[in-house]
Parts: sequence; C-alpha cells; structure tokens
Amino acid sequence: RIGNCEVWDKERGKGTAQCDTHAAALVWAYPSVLPLGGSDVNFLAFSFCRWIKFEEKVEDGGERWSKPHITVLSLHSLFELRMCIKKGTVLLDLEAHSFKQIVEKAMAVQTGERSLRPEVRKKLMSVLLRSPRHHTTQSHLRVVAEFSTACCRGECWLGASLALGHLGPSPGCSFVSLQQSNQFKKKIPAGAEVSNILVGEVDFLDKPFIAFIRLQKAVGLGALTEVAFPSRFVFILLGPRAKSKAYHEIGRAVATVLSDEVSSHRVAHQAEDREDLIAGIDEFLDELTVLPPGKWDPTIRIPPPKCLPSPHKRYQRARTQHAPATQHVSEELQRTGRLFGGLIKDVQRKAPWYWSDFYDALNIQCFSAILYIYLATVTNAITFGGMLGDATDNMQGVLESFLGTAIAGAVFCLFAGQPLTILSSTGPVLVFERLLFSFSKDYSLDYLEFRLWIGLWVAFFGLILVATEASYLVQYFTRFTEEGFCALISFIFIYDAIKKMLILADSFPVNWNYKINDVTLYGCICNASDTGRIQPEKNLGPSWTSLSSTTSANWSLLTKTECLQVGGHLVGNSCNYVPDITFMAFILFLGTFLCSMMLKRFKTSHYFPTPLRKLASDFSIILAILIFCGIDSLLGLETPKLVVPSEFKPTNPQRGWVVFPFGANPWWICLASAVPAILVIILIFMDQQITAVILNRKEYRLQKGAGFHLDLFCVSLLMVFTSVTGLPWYVSATVISLAHMDSLKKESMTSAPGEQPKFLGIREQRLTGLVVFILTGVSVFLAPVLKYIPMPVLYGVFLYMGVAALSSLQFLDRIQLLLMPAKHQPDFIYLRHVPLRRVHLFTLIQMLCLAALWVLKSTVAAIIFPVMLLALVGIRKAMECIFSRQDLSWLDDIMPEKDRKEEEEKLQGSQEKEESDGEEVSKRGKSCVLQMWLCGSGRHSSCCGGQGPSLLTCWRSILMAT
Amino acid sequence: RIGNCEVWDKERGKGTAQCDTHAAALVWAYPSVLPLGGSDVNFLAFSFCRWIKFEEKVEDGGERWSKPHITVLSLHSLFELRMCIKKGTVLLDLEAHSFKQIVEKAMAVQTGERSLRPEVRKKLMSVLLRSPRHHTTQSHLRVVAEFSTACCRGECWLGASLALGHLGPSPGCSFVSLQQSNQFKKKIPAGAEVSNILVGEVDFLDKPFIAFIRLQKAVGLGALTEVAFPSRFVFILLGPRAKSKAYHEIGRAVATVLSDEVSSHRVAHQAEDREDLIAGIDEFLDELTVLPPGKWDPTIRIPPPKCLPSPHKRYQRARTQHAPATQHVSEELQRTGRLFGGLIKDVQRKAPWYWSDFYDALNIQCFSAILYIYLATVTNAITFGGMLGDATDNMQGVLESFLGTAIAGAVFCLFAGQPLTILSSTGPVLVFERLLFSFSKDYSLDYLEFRLWIGLWVAFFGLILVATEASYLVQYFTRFTEEGFCALISFIFIYDAIKKMLILADSFPVNWNYKINDVTLYGCICNASDTGRIQPEKNLGPSWTSLSSTTSANWSLLTKTECLQVGGHLVGNSCNYVPDITFMAFILFLGTFLCSMMLKRFKTSHYFPTPLRKLASDFSIILAILIFCGIDSLLGLETPKLVVPSEFKPTNPQRGWVVFPFGANPWWICLASAVPAILVIILIFMDQQITAVILNRKEYRLQKGAGFHLDLFCVSLLMVFTSVTGLPWYVSATVISLAHMDSLKKESMTSAPGEQPKFLGIREQRLTGLVVFILTGVSVFLAPVLKYIPMPVLYGVFLYMGVAALSSLQFLDRIQLLLMPAKHQPDFIYLRHVPLRRVHLFTLIQMLCLAALWVLKSTVAAIIFPVMLLALVGIRKAMECIFSRQDLSWLDDIMPEKDRKEEEEKLQGSQEKEESDGEEVSKRGKSCVLQMWLCGSGRHSSCCGGQGPSLLTCWRSILMAT
Repeated sequence: RIGNCEVWDKERGKGTAQCDTHAAALVWAYPSVLPLGGSDVNFLAFSFCRWIKFEEKVEDGGERWSKPHITVLSLHSLFELRMCIKKGTVLLDLEAHSFKQIVEKAMAVQTGERSLRPEVRKKLMSVLLRSPRHHTTQSHLRVVAEFSTACCRGECWLGASLALGHLGPSPGCSFVSLQQSNQFKKKIPAGAEVSNILVGEVDFLDKPFIAFIRLQKAVGLGALTEVAFPSRFVFILLGPRAKSKAYHEIGRAVATVLSDEVSSHRVAHQAEDREDLIAGIDEFLDELTVLPPGKWDPTIRIPPPKCLPSPHKRYQRARTQHAPATQHVSEELQRTGRLFGGLIKDVQRKAPWYWSDFYDALNIQCFSAILYIYLATVTNAITFGGMLGDATDNMQGVLESFLGTAIAGAVFCLFAGQPLTILSSTGPVLVFERLLFSFSKDYSLDYLEFRLWIGLWVAFFGLILVATEASYLVQYFTRFTEEGFCALISFIFIYDAIKKMLILADSFPVNWNYKINDVTLYGCICNASDTGRIQPEKNLGPSWTSLSSTTSANWSLLTKTECLQVGGHLVGNSCNYVPDITFMAFILFLGTFLCSMMLKRFKTSHYFPTPLRKLASDFSIILAILIFCGIDSLLGLETPKLVVPSEFKPTNPQRGWVVFPFGANPWWICLASAVPAILVIILIFMDQQITAVILNRKEYRLQKGAGFHLDLFCVSLLMVFTSVTGLPWYVSATVISLAHMDSLKKESMTSAPGEQPKFLGIREQRLTGLVVFILTGVSVFLAPVLKYIPMPVLYGVFLYMGVAALSSLQFLDRIQLLLMPAKHQPDFIYLRHVPLRRVHLFTLIQMLCLAALWVLKSTVAAIIFPVMLLALVGIRKAMECIFSRQDLSWLDDIMPEKDRKEEEEKLQGSQEKEESDGEEVSKRGKSCVLQMWLCGSGRHSSCCGGQGPSLLTCWRSILMAT
Repeated sequence: RIGNCEVWDKERGKGTAQCDTHAAALVWAYPSVLPLGGSDVNFLAFSFCRWIKFEEKVEDGGERWSKPHITVLSLHSLFELRMCIKKGTVLLDLEAHSFKQIVEKAMAVQTGERSLRPEVRKKLMSVLLRSPRHHTTQSHLRVVAEFSTACCRGECWLGASLALGHLGPSPGCSFVSLQQSNQFKKKIPAGAEVSNILVGEVDFLDKPFIAFIRLQKAVGLGALTEVAFPSRFVFILLGPRAKSKAYHEIGRAVATVLSDEVSSHRVAHQAEDREDLIAGIDEFLDELTVLPPGKWDPTIRIPPPKCLPSPHKRYQRARTQHAPATQHVSEELQRTGRLFGGLIKDVQRKAPWYWSDFYDALNIQCFSAILYIYLATVTNAITFGGMLGDATDNMQGVLESFLGTAIAGAVFCLFAGQPLTILSSTGPVLVFERLLFSFSKDYSLDYLEFRLWIGLWVAFFGLILVATEASYLVQYFTRFTEEGFCALISFIFIYDAIKKMLILADSFPVNWNYKINDVTLYGCICNASDTGRIQPEKNLGPSWTSLSSTTSANWSLLTKTECLQVGGHLVGNSCNYVPDITFMAFILFLGTFLCSMMLKRFKTSHYFPTPLRKLASDFSIILAILIFCGIDSLLGLETPKLVVPSEFKPTNPQRGWVVFPFGANPWWICLASAVPAILVIILIFMDQQITAVILNRKEYRLQKGAGFHLDLFCVSLLMVFTSVTGLPWYVSATVISLAHMDSLKKESMTSAPGEQPKFLGIREQRLTGLVVFILTGVSVFLAPVLKYIPMPVLYGVFLYMGVAALSSLQFLDRIQLLLMPAKHQPDFIYLRHVPLRRVHLFTLIQMLCLAALWVLKSTVAAIIFPVMLLALVGIRKAMECIFSRQDLSWLDDIMPEKDRKEEEEKLQGSQEKEESDGEEVSKRGKSCVLQMWLCGSGRHSSCCGGQGPSLLTCWRSILMAT
C-alpha cells in the first residue's frame, strides 16, 4: 500500500519580507516555479504525504520524511469525505491512458448545476495538468495540494501482478529517470498500484470540483507518481479558497480509506456505484477506533504498533481476548506405534532438507556463529577436560576432551535430527564419572573397561527408547519444566564463570596490605635448600648446567621456577603475591561481558545505518573477544591465557586409544554394568530431550522440523564410540546450543516504512556446527594463535551466555514482578487474566524447585539429578490441584495432551457460539446504526425511512438480539 | 474526574465443572453471593472499571487494577449511547436522597409504550437495589454490570465544594467504614462528584430499561460508590440478554463522555433537556480522534500521554502547529533607566522571600544536596587550591582556597539574588593569576599588593556595571551561547576528571612487564649515600635516633621515606612501581560514576515502591560515594585519599592575612592596575552572568525570581574582600551550580492514576548553600573523617557532574543526530520544522565554536577567553544571515529583543486572523455536518430539513467559506 500526498500552503503575505521563510526557501530551491500573474505572486509552502502502510509526511522545509506513523484523523474529515463522494463526480472503471484523458472525462460528466463554465474548465485543466509534478511543479493556484496514495497488491484483492512495461509514454522524461532510480522503490512490493489524491484551493472556482476516478486498468501516469508504478485511483478535490487544512484533511481521509486493506477492497475495488462507495466508507467508519478528545493530543504521532490486527478479526474486536491458542502436539512427537517408527519418520522428514543444510549456511552471519561457538566449545572442552582429568587421574584429560568433542560433535552435526544442537560434556556426567572412578579404584576394577560396559548398556537402552518411541514423552515437559531446567543450567554457567574468576584471583593473590612506603621491605629471595647443593637429578637444560657449577651467591639470579626445580625455597613477604593480574583479569572479565551486551543491544540503537548495526550485533561476541584480547596484549600483563594441548597422545600414558572389553575385570561386571547404566540413560535422556524440546520450540519458527528420535539414536551410537575409545560422553548442551541458535537468527529487512522487522526463523543448517567441531579437532595446531586469548575474556563470554539464556525466560520476568509494585508492572498478557497472588505463587514454587535442584546438583546426590528432573514434571502435574486450569493455561501454556484436548474442545465450542452470536448481533447493530445517520445525509433506507417506530425496531434489534 | 465501572460477566455454563474457573474463584472470595433461583445458579465473572482521569479496569480475577490507559472506544458504541439517551428516560435536576428514590422516580416516568409491568418493575427494583454493592454484591441477574464514574470538581463547571457531611444515611455501614478508610480516596481531589453507571443484562426484561439521571444536588449514595463521595449522575442500562459486551461498551462510552472536562460540562451540567444532552454528545463525537481500523489494534492499551491538550485548544487541532511561543524579556532584565535601579528592584523582589529562603529548606532532599555539593566544593577547593599554590608559589594555597570558598560562598548565599549559585574558582581566573604572578616576579613587583589594586579596580568596574544595569545585556545570550559555554565547562569537567586519573596512574606506575616467574628477581633496596654516613641535619625523631647509630646493614630496614630522608637512595627494579593501586583507582573511579548514574536512573525503573526509588535517586551520589568508600576501606589498599589542611595559618609564611595597599610597589601601579582589571571584569561578568542565565532559565520554574544585578553586586563586593585578604577570586561555577539545582528538584506526587508526575520547580532556599560553605570552613576539623574518602571516588563524582550537565543540552541531542540515519531520528519538534541540513549546519557551527574555545582555553590565550565568549554572541548574530529567522526560532529559541518583538507581532497578527478564520469555518462546518446526521436520527433541524438544496448550501458553507 503506497501513497503520496502533497500540499502547498499559501502564504498570507504577498512576496514581501513577511513571507514564511522556509516557504521562500523552497521556491528558491525549485527555480522552475515562476510567478504567472503579475500581482498574483504567491510563495508556496510545501507539504507532501505518502502511505505505504503508514502515513509519512514531508516535514516543513520539504527535505525530510517524517517517521511512519498511524494516520490520526478527525471524525469530521471522514464525514466531509463522505459528503465529497456523495456530491462529487464518481467514475468507476474509466478507460483512460493518461492523466489528461482522465481529467477531460471527469470534467465532461459535470452537468446540470455542477457543470463548469468553459473558461473555468480551461483554467482547471491547465492547473491540473501543470501542477502535480512533485517537487518541480509550478502553478498559479493559490494553494494546490496533491495527495497520491498507492495501494500495493494485497493478497486479498489484487490478482494480477502489473508489470512496469504497462507504463504509458512519460511526459517528463528526466523525472521518469529519477523515478526509475528511486531508492525508495525497493521498499514497495512489485505489482503495487498507486492512488493519486490531488487536493487544493484555487481562486477561480466558486464551488468545489470533486472527482473520484477508478481506472479500469492500472495505468502509468508518468511523473504524477513518486515511483514508477501504475495508478488505479485518482481523487481530485479543488475548491475555492477556504481553510486549506479542510481539504488537506479530506485528502488524508481518502488516503487512509484507500490504504486500508479491507476498506479499499470494499470501497474501491468491489464498488459498482456511488452508493457502494458510500456504504464502504460507512463500514470503515463503523470499524474506527476512537480516542476521547480531552485525553489525547492528536498532534502526537503514534508509532506503528508491533503487531497489527488481522483483517478477519475486525468484527471481533470489542470482545474479550481468548485464552492463548493451545499448542497441538507437533507432528514430530506423534506415536506411530511401530518399532523405530519415530526414527524412520525423522529420517524421512530430515532427508529432503539434507543438501539445503549445507548451502543454507552461505551467509556472513554463519561465520560469526562459527567463531563464537568455536571459542565457547573450546573453552568448555578445556574446562571439562581439566575437571575430568582431575576426577579420573587423567584417564580422560584435556586432549581426550578435545578429541571426543570434535568427533562426537561433528558426527552429530552430520547425522542428527536437530543439527543446531551443540554436544558437550555436562555437569551430571562429570559427577557420575567421578563416582565411577573412585568406585573402580576402591574395588580395584579397571575403570575404562567398566565404563565401556556401562556405555554399551546405555547405548542399548537408548536404542530401546528409540525403538519404542519413548521420546514422545517429552511433550509432558511443559514450560514449567523447560524453564526450570534452562534457568538451572544458566545459573550454573553464571556461577561457574564467577567461581572460575575467584579461583583465578586466588592463584594470583593481591597483597591487600601493601604499603607504598615499605617498598624497600618487600622482597622474595631464592634460598638454598638445607643440603646447600643443587639437586642433580633434575634435567634443567644447558643454561642450568652452567649455573649449577656456580656458588650459592648465584641463587639470587634464579627465577621462581628454576629455584624450585633445583630444590631451593622462596623466602620473603612478596613471594605469595602477584601484583595487578587479578585486577586486570576482572577488568577483562567484566569488560568482555559488558561489551558483548552493549554490542548485542547496539542493533536496537538509533545510531549508524542498519546494516552496520546488524553486523556489529551479529559479531558482538567475537568483537568483544577481539577488543579485549587486543587490550590485553597492548598492556602486556601476564594474564592467564588459553592453553590447548599441542601434542596428540593420551593424557595418561597408561591408556591407549581403544579400550578392550575383557581382561581386566571379572566377567560378571559386563552384566552388573546394566545397573549404573540405568541411571546414566535417565540422565542422558532427560538432559538430551529437554534441550531438544527447548531448541525446537514453536517460537523459533524452525522450518525443517525436529528429530527427537534421530537425535537420541545418534547420541546412543556415539555412546558406543566414546566408550570404546575411552573418550568422555556427550549430550546436548542447553546454553551453548541456545547461543548457537541466537547467533543464527534471521530477521526480515523492513519492507514498508514503519513495519517492524519480523523474526523469520533460524538459519537451520549443519555447516556451522560441523566447522566448529572440525576446528575444535584441529585446535591442537591452532595453539600458537589461541595462546593470545586470556581466560578471563572467555569466562566473560560464559557469563554472557548464561545471562543471555536466562533473560529469555518468562520465569525471570515473573521473578522481576516480585520486586515491582503492582502499578508499575508491565502489561504482560497473563497479568490481565491471572490474579497477581497466583502468579507470585507459581513463581515461588518454581523458585523452590530451582533451589532444590541447585542444592542437589551441588552435592554428591547430583547423580539422582535426572530423577529430580522427572520429579519436576510430577510437581507440575500436582500444581493442577492448586491452580485452576485457566491460570495454568496462561502461565504455562503447554499442557499435557489429554487435558489440552478437552480444554480445546470446550473452548472451541463456546468460542464458536460466541463468535456466531457476536457477529450476527454486531452486524445487525452496525448496519442499523449506520443507516440511521445515513438517511440523514440523503440515503433513503427502508430501515430508517419512517422515523419513529422503525427506528425503535432497529434499536430493539440491536439491544434485544437473543 | 472519578469513576467506577463494574461488570459481571455471565458464565455460559451452569454451575458445572465447565465454569470459568476464576469466576468461580471470585464467588468463593465473596461468600455473600448466594444463588437465589434453584436451577438459575450462575457463576459471575467480575469486572469493574473506574475513570479518574484515565480508564482503569479490574483485570480478570478481580484483584488487580490495570494500568491507567486512554479509553479506546468504538464509534459504534458512541452511536449506541446516543440512541440510549434518545430513547431512554432522562431526568435532569432530580431531587432525591437515596438510590432507592432515584430508581423509583426513574421507573415512575416510564409511561406509554415504555411503561413496565408491575411484576417487572418489582424485580427490577430489587435487582437494582441489591446488586450494585461492589465486591459484596449478590444478585440473580444473569449479567449485571455496574459502572460508576465520578466527576471531580473541574474549575470550569462546579462552584461549591461538597462536604462529606452531605452523605445520606448509609445502608451498608460496614462498607461505609471501608469507604472511609479507602487509601484510594487520597488520590481524588476534595469536592469530587461521582457518576454511577450501572449496565447489565437481566432475563426478565423484554426491552431495555434506560435512565440518565442528574441529581439537583450531589448526594451520597452510600455503598454504591467505591469512595465516599457524593454522586451527581446515575446512568442505568438494563436490558434483556444480548451480547453483554454491547452494554459494557455503552457504559464505557457514557463514562468517557462524563469524564471528559469539556463534554461533561456541556453534556451533563448545562443541558436543559434531552436535546441538549444529545447535542453535547454530538459535539463530543465531532471532536473525536479516530484511528483507522486496519492500522491499529484496539486491544492495545494506550498509556496516558505526557501532556494533554488544553480544552480551549480543541477547536484548533486540525491546524498546523505554531512556531514555539517566543519568550518575553523577563521582568528581572528590564531596564529602569535609573542608577542602581536594577539593584534596587532586585532587592525589592528578593526581600519578601528572605525568610522563606530558610524554612523552605526543611526537607530531607536538602540534606542530600548538602552532602553532595559539600564534597564537590571541597574537592574543587583542594584542586584549585593546589593549582593556585603551584602557580603563585603558595601565596594562595589550599588553606586560602578553603577559607576563601567558605567565606565568599557563605556571604553570597546569604545576600545574593540567586542563592542556588555555588561560587568557585574557575579556570580563566587561575590562568590570570598564573600570568599575574610571573609578571610580578619578572618586574619585581609585590604580587599581592598588585593584585589588591586590580581587585579594587575590578570591584569598581563591577559597581559601575551594576549602577548602569549592564546585566540587562544578558538577554542577548541565547541558547546558542549558553549551550556553547555550558558544553565547554562540562567537557572541561570530564577532561579534568580523566586527566587527574591519568596523573594518578602516573604517580602509581604499574609494572606492565612484570613476570610472575621472576618474582625472585624483583626488589628495591635502600642503599647508603655516597658519603656512607647518615646526614645529621634532618630531624627524624627518636625512632630514627636509635637507628642512626647502627651499622649500614640496617639500611635495609628503612622504609622508602626514611631512606630518602637520611640521604639514601633506592636501588632495584621494583622501586618505581606500585602494584594494584592504579587498577583499584580506576575501578573506584568508574564504579562511582556508573553507580551514580544507575542510582539516579533508578527513579524511572519499575522496582520497589516510589518513595524508596525517589530516596535512592535523591541520594544517588552520596550513596555511590559511601558504597565505594566502603569497598575501598574493606579492601584496604593504600589508594590516594582526600587530604584537607588541618592547621589554620597562611600556606606561605611570608604573607599575612591582610594585604596592605601601599609600600611594596611604585605608586603608579595603583592606576596601571586598571588595565588588567578591564580584562578581569569582562571575565567575571561573562562567567558570572552566563551561569546566572543558565540557572534562571524558564524551564526550571523558579518562583522567587532572579537577581542578576544583586549577584554582580555581591561578586564585586567579595572581590574587595578577597583582594584585601589575599584569598582567591570567586565567580559562579556552572557545573556545580547545575548539580546543586538538580539535587533540589521538586516533583509532584502523582494525583490521578496515570497522570505524569510534574516537575514543580526547585527548592529555592539559601540554607543548603550556606551549610555547604560553613562545612567547607570547618573542614579543617573534619580531616579525620574526610581522609577515608579516596580521590578516585571524587573524580568519579566530577565525571558524573560533567556528564549530567552535558546530557541536559539540546546541543548534545543534535550531535547525536549527526550519527543517526534520518529514519531513526527521534521526533524532535525542531526536526519537524527545520530541514535536517540546516540543523546539522547549526550543530557543526556550534561544534566549531566549541573547538575554538577549547583550543583557546588550553593555551595561554586563555586570558582572552571572556572576549571569545562575547564573540559567541557575535557569531550567533552573524548566523542570522545564514539561517532564516524561522529556523533560528526553532533551534535557538531565545532571540534578541528587538527582532523578537517584530516577530511576535507578526506571528500574533497572523495567528489571530487564522484562529478567527479557522474557528468560524470549523464551527460552521461542524454544526452542519453534525446536523446532517442528526436529522437522520430524528432531530428536525432547519439546515437539513429539506433534503436536496439545503444540504448543498450546507456543503458550500463548509467548503467555500471565504
């Protein structure tokens, strides 16, 4: 829907110094404006509006388009418009090929009282043909206003796309070339039709000349339109001098009606005669939203709302909002009832997308996502590798962690149902490994062999779960469960990031009692050990060999490492302190976090062009990392850096790359392993599937479907591989996967001015994940580059990921509500429907659950953590006793299937009834009320013809519709 | 304007499990609701609205008031309301003392076709009398909705304030006590009148019962109203079962009309018969603002706008906005033409306020302001004192700075015209002193005596300026000049804060090349001086005496100070470095700044109750200082602290407390001093008056008037004092004075829900300033407390002050515009009227001026800085050649007087003309258009009676009004 409106405002003075200055400026800017009549010189103020979806206006000065805003009209102007249509010339389906033809035909039909004198007709013709040439126009009219509205091809009412070739011969060639190169044209959908509205004052008319013309075919009117699109409608209103604003407002009213999807269809495209047009305007009138005069300042420009009402909802507006549409069980989770039926369907669903999963990745955004997720994955691999190494005496160390992550992740990305998932070691797995290792040690079992059998059992159970389509159970994971889990994982991320920073501060202790004045008293000296001799067994290289032969005086030249190596010990009050590093680390940590946040939000700021902001936002984390790595290297402090293993061999020399299933342990261990395996499979099933549910939420608008069964299948197979090779076990990592999704969000480029950019979905592809894991694999060779990245920067990224994952939760909104007085609370939809006490109760229960889970996770009981997740589902179920279903449907929108169906049926039933009731009544009411005031303005309607009793009938039909 | 609206929504089901759950919950919550008919049990959903100024609604669940919002109606409901008034019973000026009486009288007039059968009448009576009891109501109607609107005593239409004693005997005593204690009542102005609107569906009626009743006198209707205010209007609409929403919407429409200032006056209070009421509604209809249906979702609740249109502007709404009202010359700056006329008028103006200047300070906010400004003043005194000491070889040192600040500031606060001003040394004065001192040294003049004569001349010139009322010239300081100056001073604050931090970092150098491993190689040792003997001339106290007798081995036990004192020197690679302090200082600096910003903004957040937020915001800087002082002491690092002099004696022992005018210099110096004095008086006049103009801006809404002449008089007299005593010279300090004002801002407590808190002005008083300077004077004794405040924290406060002063400038907004693409720019009023290129040009010129001033200030040429400020005024004048007056009036709203008057006259002339034109036309147009649809609904108007030709006449009169 496009449109233009142009108004020249007459300046009251006559070419003297009193003239409106920016009006004068305009005239100078467009030197083709020549005064015609000698004493009739008038300076022209200039104003121009257009509607594509919302109104835009050229501001005073004629150089600036206003922000798109909702057209605010006065009711008055709509009544006047109605009068115009009623009294003016209406030509429907006119055949004409140029604007001149149109004007001629419009004037020809003026007969009787309305007919124009020949000289007036001539003048009018010349004015109309000369004036509407946009910025380069000249005229001797006192005020000429031109509006032109273009209606884009709405899906509802315009079938054929109209090619630009239809354009007639253009009179103003230079302008047409301007039209063609107009940047603005890009914003208009192809096949749009223009409506031109010309409104103004002339001094030679003594009554208004009004014409509403619909052309049979859209025709290019040359320079009349701002962009080279064909025109379908022309509205002309020229009248004698009056308040120019009145004409302007009528013009805006026409534009508003014509730019309205539903009304323009009714009013303009379907109308067969003048009465139809008027009826269309009346319908438009009846659907208006009105604001009371004393409470709203009409000069406020209302920005376009985030979402617009859909046209078919228009009749239902006065009615209460329904409960949010309950979600159907997605096709992915429906049971087939056959063995491996779900898996087969998953494969069938995903296979057609397989190639697109690679070429869909061809976007610069994916590059950013790769770098971001790669760094997160590497940091994670190092962290978990380190902890696993501690827990298992390096049977699984950092190198194993890298290798496992790379292989498992890459394989998963290649074959899984949801390739956006990022695999990682997770906390519960770590706890399990630690227990398993100490158990093995206590009972002298071979850890890796024991673990191999458990892994095999887990894989077997996993396959059984896949075969029985157990994944369909995930539909019972409601928002309550998901958000509880996701909040927990996010809190762990935040907690871990801060904890690691504190550990780092511990390793670089600050001397808080340092006195500047005592600088001479601080020192740290390497003292000879008791033996007084350098211990010879250590191999210290040639530089040391020369040193070792020197006297004890040379002890003072030894560095800390050398000193300890040769058996000396450090003496002094500054030995345990490291200056500056801790402060620097915290500055890097917080800096990276805040910088990421700021850059991410930069997209919604108002500075710089959109593409630049989008780029900065897409690359926010990478930029933040680069900035703070740069700061770190510039300052040159010895902050702890990322160190990746650079040699390819098992961390613990006692193990090889393959674990043999038999030999070290008694034979019955193979069977007994099934018991711990049950725990592990619950853990893996819950961890994997909750993450999968979160990633596959409707709100992400995934196009290629999920693959819950296929995902579990892949994870199970990878269990076999990782168990055999003695690498860590992997499941989906919620927070990193969410960060992955987040960095791949697609948004529409705004089309019509004022339209909100729409979230279009995620770039669903396998390439980013694959590259991330390949890079992880070759990180061994990237060590020289990676060593420039300080750990605090990476911890800052972890903090950011945790906070970002948290902030997307409704749960967090509700926690914030706890701190807000009721009157300041935002207008959340559930607050309109659920009493605040209930909302708070719901939040508190969720917080209690979270606290319980947190405590569990922090203790050894972490091993029953997955069972507790199952308990969450139970708690949610139990809450149905405390909360009404209505409340739960607002707070926790996904309900277990059975109840939901009942609910839906009930809702649908009553809604349908209401709808039919409502529509009937409102239609009856509307047509009557409208007819009432219609007959006043000359329409002889049967309903309102006879005044008294029939009106009462009308009235009754409105009020007493039963 | 108050109102309530209550709606019970019938639940479609019949007491089964299908019932609306939260409706059921309501019924439980109000156990007095008893089902009456056996099978007729209905659960009632509950909804209740009120209007004070904006609409509030009880959300589903009946426990929560929605946010106040603009009432959005459908045009349809207003037409239906019109029909209701037309068809229903209208009783104007009814005499009745209870709701029962009202209902009886309303039913009594139902005659003819509309008369009710006795049994219906009885049922209706019982329903109406039993139902509208708010939350404790019971009824067996299927749906009963009650609205009640209260109209507050508008200035326009209600004379007598109605005492609560007028309340009739209350039927529900317990409820009345609830009414009396209702917290909500506080928000309603005394003398408000309630309108009660009862709307609903009953099943025993077959046609609607409609009554609009205006009571002759407002009468307390007991429990009918939410608050115990007397009621004036009652609207009842009970009809057979229909779409309940239709009744609800009619009720909202009545409420909107009655809560509108202008309409309720016209519609309800002046109306003499039904026709008047309808005419009033029609006028309301004609003034409506309408939003097109497809572009606006009516379920969006529009928050109340920041400013509302004034009722008398309603007719002008469709017209363009005028240029902003140009400001008149304030009374303070008008010339009397008599010697000292301005000074006398200043004294006359300020004298009546003198005592209020003390008791107006009795507010907790002033306490915060005192602490904040005290700390700023002390820091400033120390900084400038230190720099002056450097520049003048301690002829003016820190102690002189403290003393001078205290005395001059206190005297100024006691006697000045604008006691909110804070005096301080300023940069230009410092530059002048430095030049003066080196000049004196070069030519062997006595600095203080020379300075005394200059000071006396300056005072003399100042008095001449006061006598000749030269301060009236400040009206030529437009926004351009003010903002240029203010931006410069703010930038200097920011620059200085950062510079001082960098200097601090230089004094505590970080060893960027520190290697953790080399800890053993770092050290700093006190070595004996070349003589090998401790120098005996230094008096080092007893502890040293014992040391001095020891051998050289003990050198290593000396601290840095001791070592240097005894003539040793420090050797080692860690001597020049100080660990951690610099980092800590930056953390404190940025922390204080960010914390102040956050706490200041906390007022506009949504957390915690308003008083708490206001407190946090008022005390933001003090809190930030306390927090970071706390952190600093907790960590215990030796950060540089605030040190104030603790002994009361001249810094340089060569000077005394009084400077003698003769003796040291040749006699002609007394006369020659007049030459530099001219420079100083320009400096002082500009510095003082620009600050005074900024402080006395209209937007601060000062009540007690300014005193430009009196201020200059005070400053001149203080010049005499400070010159005689050899203390620094003082003028107004822009940034600290602005911070002072800012910390004393008053805001209204919101009255009606949804109304924006209004800025009420500044707590104008003399006490805060006085106490600040007294505290500064006694700071010598506060040294033990002040030594806990780290300097970086105070620099952070300075940074905050600079940024806060900057962010209030329109100049900064315009600089931001340079970085924004046009479509993202905010909707500034000047952008609607001035082309963007011109705005940018204006900004760039201002930036160039600022850069020039900055360069000037940074060089020795700083001495001609005040002349450059005068040049700013010239540049502004020259800009009138480049910019049109229209543009300048938008960008730089204060214009020199002469032009302004012309402009005003011109504007007024044309505006008056336009207004009369506009109003006439719009009135004519309006009445006609309205009549048009009026006659349709039964009104026989002369204009629209005969259809064809008279309509055309109407139409012509609208369009062709010349």
